[in-house]
Amino acid sequence: MSEKRTEIGAIGEFGLIERLNEQIKIRQKGTLKGIGDDAAVLDAGDMVKVVTTDLLLEGVHFDLSYAPLHHLGFKAVAVNISDVAAMNAIPTQITVSIALSNRFSVEAVEAIYAGINAAAEQYNVDVIGGDTTSSRSGLVISVTAIGEVEKGKEVYRSGAKENDIVCVTGDLGAALIGLQVLEREKEVYMANPNMQPELDKYSYVTSRQLKPDARMDIIHELRDLEVVPTSMMDISDGLASELFHICKQSKVGVTIYEDKLPIDKQTFDTAVEFNMDPITCVLNGGEDYELLFTIDQKDFDKLEKHPDIHFIGHITKEDSGKFLVTKSETAVELKAQGWVHFNQK
Amino acid sequence: MSEKRTEIGAIGEFGLIERLNEQIKIRQKGTLKGIGDDAAVLDAGDMVKVVTTDLLLEGVHFDLSYAPLHHLGFKAVAVNISDVAAMNAIPTQITVSIALSNRFSVEAVEAIYAGINAAAEQYNVDVIGGDTTSSRSGLVISVTAIGEVEKGKEVYRSGAKENDIVCVTGDLGAALIGLQVLEREKEVYMANPNMQPELDKYSYVTSRQLKPDARMDIIHELRDLEVVPTSMMDISDGLASELFHICKQSKVGVTIYEDKLPIDKQTFDTAVEFNMDPITCVLNGGEDYELLFTIDQKDFDKLEKHPDIHFIGHITKEDSGKFLVTKSETAVELKAQGWVHFNQK
Repeated sequence: MSEKRTEIGAIGEFGLIERLNEQIKIRQKGTLKGIGDDAAVLDAGDMVKVVTTDLLLEGVHFDLSYAPLHHLGFKAVAVNISDVAAMNAIPTQITVSIALSNRFSVEAVEAIYAGINAAAEQYNVDVIGGDTTSSRSGLVISVTAIGEVEKGKEVYRSGAKENDIVCVTGDLGAALIGLQVLEREKEVYMANPNMQPELDKYSYVTSRQLKPDARMDIIHELRDLEVVPTSMMDISDGLASELFHICKQSKVGVTIYEDKLPIDKQTFDTAVEFNMDPITCVLNGGEDYELLFTIDQKDFDKLEKHPDIHFIGHITKEDSGKFLVTKSETAVELKAQGWVHFNQK
Repeated sequence: MSEKRTEIGAIGEFGLIERLNEQIKIRQKGTLKGIGDDAAVLDAGDMVKVVTTDLLLEGVHFDLSYAPLHHLGFKAVAVNISDVAAMNAIPTQITVSIALSNRFSVEAVEAIYAGINAAAEQYNVDVIGGDTTSSRSGLVISVTAIGEVEKGKEVYRSGAKENDIVCVTGDLGAALIGLQVLEREKEVYMANPNMQPELDKYSYVTSRQLKPDARMDIIHELRDLEVVPTSMMDISDGLASELFHICKQSKVGVTIYEDKLPIDKQTFDTAVEFNMDPITCVLNGGEDYELLFTIDQKDFDKLEKHPDIHFIGHITKEDSGKFLVTKSETAVELKAQGWVHFNQK
């Protein structure tokens, strides 16, 4: 081992990943896209196959004190299906590897797999491999998802162009607020195990955190309407961060409008209860697993009446920058991380 | 969670996997083979793609007190490439996910990735995805490998037929003996950290444990010679166990000959030093990552002179059973696990 020791904290996880990715070479002509999008894209005759993978660890990505095992199995699949959807592809197969210690019973493992199989059924995919192995410590779940789409119909982060319309599905910020509720209830329970958590009035936000749904319905509808987005990705790290990725890879700018941002009433009310700014939650909340995409203006008519697609802004020239226009018609520069709402300054 | 609690130990890891696999359904016509071979097989036009995955955990699958990080990265890739080879396919892409705690430095992570990239270069594959995430405890590495082969040329465990010749590559048992040496040196070092391990005279067996090589050379040579094996798998759990898989899936029996089994002199001598029976090591030693395959008799001439392919026996009718013919010409029934050599009775 080298004698020099640089702490990962010194360059950050993001810096580390960038440094490692610099070493990676592409050798195969069948690799149409490697690292850098929601999924890799591989040549497969008239079709392309897309491949994406996620590694989930107990204590880092999930907390078993409030995540039911069935939901956890479902979510581990859904977050990968969401990446397949973000390429405009239809998922076809998954592999699932699980490592667990003997504190888990056979029934517990079966509950995880029941969630995995429920997701496989819902998204119409086959479980084609993986293994179940022992772990010295926590639960580890590794899922790889494969999908396919007609060659040329796959959608990258890099295709947005000036005047395209920016669209998001569903509503945003709920998963982050759901996490706040679950963390609070966990603390209450830890302080007094006889207290029953009061989750009924938070059922929407907590379900968005515990059992997110990949938006395959939208992908099928876009096909039926013959709309191919110019760029797309799923919203796992927050809308603002994802807009930065699309702008960087498409070499464009963006303007979005606060009054167009979709937020559920329960998310809004609970954010206020937690003394959090709802718009900050919408912009920076993670794990929504909704789709962010851009369309050519000519396709607007086809989607205009869709009840679950929201038109939040438009793509601009790169040197125009990235802005949020507030309800009071002030243009505020978007920040990818740690964005602070203007009201809080 | 269910109120009933069955310990995993009560049904065993193998029993658990069987129980979980029973729940799995195949829905996609593009899934040509799901669980049950070295890799899954997917339709891809004129080709098929094969997909295999492995999850490796510190303390379960490797021990960092003697596994150099560079070798570990290499091995994590090689064991997956070996599964691609076992389908008679050429590997094309891999995804690699790594979870680690802050006890690892940037240099340590770079050492792991240097091993991964060295393997990617050697096997001519692209690293197309994966992530680097934090772990609360040990190091976790998850690799998925993808390969391809002309449709109809993929080789399953199920194609062996009566009178086929049973072939193995390289030599067997070395990785198991290498592990014994490393474990012994670790104990010596733990007892007295000033002792330097004496590994020079064991360099072959320890390198077989620490840095196994996938036999892609053999797959390329079989292509050049226009030989398609009738069945194939890689030897990761021991020759006897793998022969059982081929016999079960091909519905055949097998007879192999002790005097034909390939063992390296260092493996033999070290086994004796450890008071282990060398033939037991060959039959039941894991992690050799050599290839076990069967060929039609008509192909024998093409391979007869190959310096690294050994003809160890032949396939029989299923009801003839599975036998090892010893040097003293006694037929001993093969056992898949815990096989005891006749001399030790």
